[in-house]
Amino acid sequence: MRANFEDRFWELSALGDDHIISVVEDESSGKIIATGSIFIEKKFLRNCGKVGHIEDVVVDSNARGLKLGKKIIAFLTEHARLMGCYKVILDCSLENRAFYEKCGFKQKEIQMVKYFI
Amino acid sequence: MRANFEDRFWELSALGDDHIISVVEDESSGKIIATGSIFIEKKFLRNCGKVGHIEDVVVDSNARGLKLGKKIIAFLTEHARLMGCYKVILDCSLENRAFYEKCGFKQKEIQMVKYFI
Repeated sequence: MRANFEDRFWELSALGDDHIISVVEDESSGKIIATGSIFIEKKFLRNCGKVGHIEDVVVDSNARGLKLGKKIIAFLTEHARLMGCYKVILDCSLENRAFYEKCGFKQKEIQMVKYFI
Repeated sequence: MRANFEDRFWELSALGDDHIISVVEDESSGKIIATGSIFIEKKFLRNCGKVGHIEDVVVDSNARGLKLGKKIIAFLTEHARLMGCYKVILDCSLENRAFYEKCGFKQKEIQMVKYFI
């Protein structure tokens, strides 16, 4: 398991600014209390445009109310902008729509999924 | 513009099986009449899991009714499975939900977007 993790670490590191994982650490406990990641998709479409995909946004239930989720989203969104993306997107549940609207996002489409396992 | 296109071509080529663009060509005209792409997102989450993201599915309006969209989706979905993804996802409009349901997908979440330009 540790070997898998290390392999993945080096795979992601090799992607440089195209894959960023943001974390907030509680310095007193050393625990990670919020995280979110982004990867940059490169297209031929939209004049060889780039799209930022925000994934895996989680805030520890003991750290709610500190606006950490908003800070993570603001950081990842700014990263996408600096990378030259024409848009940044994410998928979320209906219950989280209001939160993302407060972060400046709008609903556009629906997400479809097919599971293999 | 051509230089941009070639730069992007080599960037995408370097991603190997992590980024595939599928096309259907009409051999008589030499025109591309259907396309769709997939890229493979690598996570730490889900036991260092992988997710296939299907993007940019388009069928020429003169080539409808030939099930080319279904073939493109089947090819990209199978690619995700072979790459070891635990799921494949895509975003689409409400009007296209029925098509993707026929392809074995289910709606799960909603897509949120923020445009920079």
